[in-house]
Amino acid sequence: MLGLRRLVREALLEDVGQGDVTTKSTIPDDLRCSARVFARQAGVLSGIEAFREVFEVLKARVEKWHARNDAEHFSEGDLLGSFEADAAAVLTGERVALNFLQRLCGVATLTQQYVEAVKGLDARICDTRKTTPLMRTLEKKAVMHGGGVNHRFALFDGVLIKENHVAAAGGVGEAVRRAIEGTHHLMKIGVEVTTIDELSEALEAGADSVLLDNMSLDAISEAVKLTVSRKVILEASGNVTLENVRAIAETGVHYISVGALTHSAPSVDLSLLLENA
Amino acid sequence: MLGLRRLVREALLEDVGQGDVTTKSTIPDDLRCSARVFARQAGVLSGIEAFREVFEVLKARVEKWHARNDAEHFSEGDLLGSFEADAAAVLTGERVALNFLQRLCGVATLTQQYVEAVKGLDARICDTRKTTPLMRTLEKKAVMHGGGVNHRFALFDGVLIKENHVAAAGGVGEAVRRAIEGTHHLMKIGVEVTTIDELSEALEAGADSVLLDNMSLDAISEAVKLTVSRKVILEASGNVTLENVRAIAETGVHYISVGALTHSAPSVDLSLLLENA
Amino acid sequence: MLGLRRLVREALLEDVGQGDVTTKSTIPDDLRCSARVFARQAGVLSGIEAFREVFEVLKARVEKWHARNDAEHFSEGDLLGSFEADAAAVLTGERVALNFLQRLCGVATLTQQYVEAVKGLDARICDTRKTTPLMRTLEKKAVMHGGGVNHRFALFDGVLIKENHVAAAGGVGEAVRRAIEGTHHLMKIGVEVTTIDELSEALEAGADSVLLDNMSLDAISEAVKLTVSRKVILEASGNVTLENVRAIAETGVHYISVGALTHSAPSVDLSLLLENA
Amino acid sequence: MLGLRRLVREALLEDVGQGDVTTKSTIPDDLRCSARVFARQAGVLSGIEAFREVFEVLKARVEKWHARNDAEHFSEGDLLGSFEADAAAVLTGERVALNFLQRLCGVATLTQQYVEAVKGLDARICDTRKTTPLMRTLEKKAVMHGGGVNHRFALFDGVLIKENHVAAAGGVGEAVRRAIEGTHHLMKIGVEVTTIDELSEALEAGADSVLLDNMSLDAISEAVKLTVSRKVILEASGNVTLENVRAIAETGVHYISVGALTHSAPSVDLSLLLENA
Amino acid sequence: MLGLRRLVREALLEDVGQGDVTTKSTIPDDLRCSARVFARQAGVLSGIEAFREVFEVLKARVEKWHARNDAEHFSEGDLLGSFEADAAAVLTGERVALNFLQRLCGVATLTQQYVEAVKGLDARICDTRKTTPLMRTLEKKAVMHGGGVNHRFALFDGVLIKENHVAAAGGVGEAVRRAIEGTHHLMKIGVEVTTIDELSEALEAGADSVLLDNMSLDAISEAVKLTVSRKVILEASGNVTLENVRAIAETGVHYISVGALTHSAPSVDLSLLLENA
Amino acid sequence: MLGLRRLVREALLEDVGQGDVTTKSTIPDDLRCSARVFARQAGVLSGIEAFREVFEVLKARVEKWHARNDAEHFSEGDLLGSFEADAAAVLTGERVALNFLQRLCGVATLTQQYVEAVKGLDARICDTRKTTPLMRTLEKKAVMHGGGVNHRFALFDGVLIKENHVAAAGGVGEAVRRAIEGTHHLMKIGVEVTTIDELSEALEAGADSVLLDNMSLDAISEAVKLTVSRKVILEASGNVTLENVRAIAETGVHYISVGALTHSAPSVDLSLLLENA
Repeated sequence: MLGLRRLVREALLEDVGQGDVTTKSTIPDDLRCSARVFARQAGVLSGIEAFREVFEVLKARVEKWHARNDAEHFSEGDLLGSFEADAAAVLTGERVALNFLQRLCGVATLTQQYVEAVKGLDARICDTRKTTPLMRTLEKKAVMHGGGVNHRFALFDGVLIKENHVAAAGGVGEAVRRAIEGTHHLMKIGVEVTTIDELSEALEAGADSVLLDNMSLDAISEAVKLTVSRKVILEASGNVTLENVRAIAETGVHYISVGALTHSAPSVDLSLLLENA
Repeated sequence: MLGLRRLVREALLEDVGQGDVTTKSTIPDDLRCSARVFARQAGVLSGIEAFREVFEVLKARVEKWHARNDAEHFSEGDLLGSFEADAAAVLTGERVALNFLQRLCGVATLTQQYVEAVKGLDARICDTRKTTPLMRTLEKKAVMHGGGVNHRFALFDGVLIKENHVAAAGGVGEAVRRAIEGTHHLMKIGVEVTTIDELSEALEAGADSVLLDNMSLDAISEAVKLTVSRKVILEASGNVTLENVRAIAETGVHYISVGALTHSAPSVDLSLLLENA
Repeated sequence: MLGLRRLVREALLEDVGQGDVTTKSTIPDDLRCSARVFARQAGVLSGIEAFREVFEVLKARVEKWHARNDAEHFSEGDLLGSFEADAAAVLTGERVALNFLQRLCGVATLTQQYVEAVKGLDARICDTRKTTPLMRTLEKKAVMHGGGVNHRFALFDGVLIKENHVAAAGGVGEAVRRAIEGTHHLMKIGVEVTTIDELSEALEAGADSVLLDNMSLDAISEAVKLTVSRKVILEASGNVTLENVRAIAETGVHYISVGALTHSAPSVDLSLLLENA
Repeated sequence: MLGLRRLVREALLEDVGQGDVTTKSTIPDDLRCSARVFARQAGVLSGIEAFREVFEVLKARVEKWHARNDAEHFSEGDLLGSFEADAAAVLTGERVALNFLQRLCGVATLTQQYVEAVKGLDARICDTRKTTPLMRTLEKKAVMHGGGVNHRFALFDGVLIKENHVAAAGGVGEAVRRAIEGTHHLMKIGVEVTTIDELSEALEAGADSVLLDNMSLDAISEAVKLTVSRKVILEASGNVTLENVRAIAETGVHYISVGALTHSAPSVDLSLLLENA
Repeated sequence: MLGLRRLVREALLEDVGQGDVTTKSTIPDDLRCSARVFARQAGVLSGIEAFREVFEVLKARVEKWHARNDAEHFSEGDLLGSFEADAAAVLTGERVALNFLQRLCGVATLTQQYVEAVKGLDARICDTRKTTPLMRTLEKKAVMHGGGVNHRFALFDGVLIKENHVAAAGGVGEAVRRAIEGTHHLMKIGVEVTTIDELSEALEAGADSVLLDNMSLDAISEAVKLTVSRKVILEASGNVTLENVRAIAETGVHYISVGALTHSAPSVDLSLLLENA
Repeated sequence: MLGLRRLVREALLEDVGQGDVTTKSTIPDDLRCSARVFARQAGVLSGIEAFREVFEVLKARVEKWHARNDAEHFSEGDLLGSFEADAAAVLTGERVALNFLQRLCGVATLTQQYVEAVKGLDARICDTRKTTPLMRTLEKKAVMHGGGVNHRFALFDGVLIKENHVAAAGGVGEAVRRAIEGTHHLMKIGVEVTTIDELSEALEAGADSVLLDNMSLDAISEAVKLTVSRKVILEASGNVTLENVRAIAETGVHYISVGALTHSAPSVDLSLLLENA
């Protein structure tokens, strides 16, 4: 991943700065240790590459590296990985490494719960741009590790006309037409609507994908019926929870986007244990 | 805050990159808008400076800025701020600005719940280093906005000997003595213990602050009694929840540190509404 | 344009480094000058924002700024802009400012010649990724100023399966199917083909856009006929020149992409004249 | 070359950003390929180091690297280099690598044509500061690969008093005297003149090198005669073309500087072919 | 040391920029050399890691590296290190490498003289924040190599209330109380005083460490007596010289901080000799 | 000065990092102060621009700025400057601002002493490349403020063949000839020699400037005689002190370069006094 090293280095600078005063004063430079990462609760793994990169940046001289793969499910108490390295570097990098790993496992694990909730149905669970600043690439990977799919990465790789664009542009149809004219020919045109009327306007103007924002189950079902014979993609969004996601999926929409996957996933509790090697 | 501009610029580069294809194609360059931020749920405000900085970096020509202050409590439906600016810049920056604000309000709000739970007692709620990579300064401020206090910022501004250091150094006492010798004279020595015996060893070696990690209420109470006549600071940590935090506080410890404040705070739901100015 | 200041600053560092030894030794600090930019040959304007930014970064205290707009056509001898500023800063920044402006006018001017060559036909002239390293945003804007349209910006904002992908993936159809599955739902799938058979394979697999690479006029015409009733976009590419571009356009393809717009456009000759103010 | 890695990394960030959506979705991670670079037209090689660096930055695991050396001449159809590497990385980096190589070969090739045009005469072909922003080091090397020589690199490593300096300083002689006084003792003083009178003034003031700007062949010849017994360097510049460069060289000037070498050199057409290894 | 590579690279960019014109023009690329570093005067070694890093950044292909360790004492004429490497890279990096090494040896050597001057007494010699911009980490290490101890690193890792803080806060006691309240619980509170009255006020308010600024020997002695039975740290500072430092130490203060260690240490004269390998 | 802001920002990051814990906890945000800088010893001013930039970067809202100019001489007790600003920002930036100013005044002051020592003679005092990493631009300016002149800035803006180049190239004459051939035509060729024979060899080969390294007064005088009728520049260097510099100057050399100006100048003692405004 282009940019991972820089991200990890910045994170280390934030936490280590000019030096880890505790480790420097208490741990001999030449001490080697064996380290093991355990899960304190069940979940789905994500972020193992960033975890390891922390120790590479710190030049911990990692050896005997064993780790589970991203996307693997784990239970409470499971060993997720182990390695040998310089004790001082492991102690210095431990928190940053776990901060990455716990957060990303959290995203993967919550995603997996949503995916599980719609099992057997066609709808796919996808993420949003409601990610943590500077963590988007990693968080979007975590969504995939949890079984979800990615939405557009950012503002530059997909057109999605939101309610505020519609208001400023003077209507759904006008906004869609401008977007078709103003973007390159490999981009589809997505647009957010809140009523069946707006949906019709979007379709007429040539939208390729329509996001049904905060609409009732009935309205979503009607939207699905209206478009069943057209090559248009339907996405539902807004107030999606683990409780209502299956009902939404059952309407027949193709995608359900869930901001909580990245903005409100609780961390998965992990621990790193050291022994002198 | 030294570094805020750079952080915001990086976050914008992540989301905007070489351009917001939707806004560029649908919104006229010279359109001005009035924008208002509403709370969709109750909470505590934090991050308003970062929120605004997004639009400064985008040169949105912000005018008529009104905003509530960080640390203020708000209810569902409250207006949190309003301003006028270039519509295109607001549409481009909206998501990044809200990503900062929602997350930081989330931290402040969760902190406030913990602080409320120990109301009337002496124990203070404090944060940990379990923060989001690159967001630590903002998240630590959010903890303060929620009524909590900050622990050490990072590895460089406070000594805290953890279990893994003790293991590598060969005992609590030895680790404390090395730290006293090896750090500058304006630093206190903090150490993590898990038993009363270790506590005694720490005190004897000269520790200024002791973190009682994952100890039972009874053990914590005993630790408090043991140290009542000494000038040592006691901090409890590990598996703290909104349910048990008051009981912990009632033991008489000075600080209760809660990782969840920063690693598992759900975002507060906010919305930004635009109208053509 | 997010990033323009940094680009200009880097360009100035390249040329100015720790100081312009000629200007520092010969020009008084407090001398003001009036500067005028003239065209030494006809062309289309592009890059005026970067031109000006050079003097902003140098803190030249620019006043009385007048300049033509990007996309305007000009003749030999025309005045393109004028301003007053500190003489030393103008002398130091002159070359870098003109290096940007001459190159970008070159791109706009060549683009305009291609656009003129297909006048009255439906085909649009578009650019490629054969741009100068680090100048892509500016060069793509120059293509628009010349009347062309932009293709995808980069590898991240559009799928275009090239010949080498097809070879590695084991066939046009297989590659298209993988891309549909593996990218987000706001992206169209573009694919490059060299024969009518591959075109059919691409269509069958669900491609949204097909690039006809280096195909004969007859083959292109056949491709247009084959797809006339389908909602697929056709783009021709390869060995396009000012001589043959009209014939290609007459086949009915929607887009003609021309690498030369950015990789081989000669600079437009401009001059900057100074007088003491 | 100090700084090459950073330049290449920035160029890759521009084109690859958070990911190459086509390659990621169509090419298996573990696929190796063999790649060959061919010339589609004759030219002079330059830029092979930058070409390779692209794949190093992408960690393509390059093996069996064979490549011609910079400054070698090649014919249409020639194999310029070959290597084995990870297919995905090669596909992702191909365009950036070729963008560097094609442009630099273009500069070397055009330079070689000018050098060939003055063959047998003493005049040397040299470059100017009319280079592409951020590409100067590479472009100046390309000029050398084509048989030319480099002029000063930038504003910091040579004094060249231009027409605008003369105007601001109040005369050729005054400007030269100030420069002698104001720069360190390892720098020669160069000055641009447009008449024989100015040349005399420059010599009298102590100029070491004189640039004859846009002067007629007769005037250049007169300048050569005037200075034949002095240790002064003469350089001709302005409106130099492949047609008139030999006539200029025959006057006996020491250097002929040609902006077109770097600002208007068309790219040399190259192709990269992949096969699964 | 996290950040050393970047510091060295920046220092090289400052001195080498786009190229070392002397070495490039006079030294063959493939020439290897053997290099030796000699001391032209006695001193204490510091900075050997930065010295070597210069040649690593320049890719000098260093072999047969032998060097004395930081903190070792050396005499005039001593060989401090030797290695083989590419001659061109060594010639290009020599000055920057020595600039680091001479300066840091200077700091270590001056520190050692102060430490020697207080030999046998309990007072420790420590540094200040009067360091060279961007060199603090290296200079603080040099102080340790010379036998001194480090004070707080910077403004973020220790509380030290200075005279100007006291003035702005309205008194020593008030400032100390605010600091206790406003900083995290692992920090001691240090405060600067200039009279015995202020010392009393500081102690009463709860200061952990007191800096006696520019006080007479008598006043310092009185301060020591006053605090002999308390757990407070006393530091003397201001106008400390090699002549008066022992007298200050004899008062019984714990620390003597000396700005000159880093702001006025003369460089130690070293030379680097090359021979063709 | 291009780059000053970045240098100052980095210096502040080094000292302030995530926050000045003392000032934040003791000083109200809205307190304004008046600040005055006094000299505690006589000297020459340099660095006032960097000093001020510190408070600009910290957004101290500076008003009523009065300051002496660089190059002015001052006596003990003199007021060097005064301003009003936010008290917290002044307290936070004070040390970094003074670290710049004291060091640069130190360089200017020592330079002035050397210049004074050769008063009335033609020799000029110049600096070397023995500067502090990343401070070269500022230190070279300080040398000028002290009345000295600058030598080449770095390796890229002047040819100076040193003893080690001569050894690697195989002789003074050979090295000079290579340099003439291999560098651009606006550069003079400087070479270091240690004997009269080498001087002759250098002159014969065409050197423009000769550095007499560590030669005796007699040898220097002989060198002056030998070259009196030639247009060659003579520079003396090596073991120059305030005691022997006048004797060296009396030989008639044009330049005397002194490494100590930048590598061993003691800081000038300054103080900053605050009062609440």
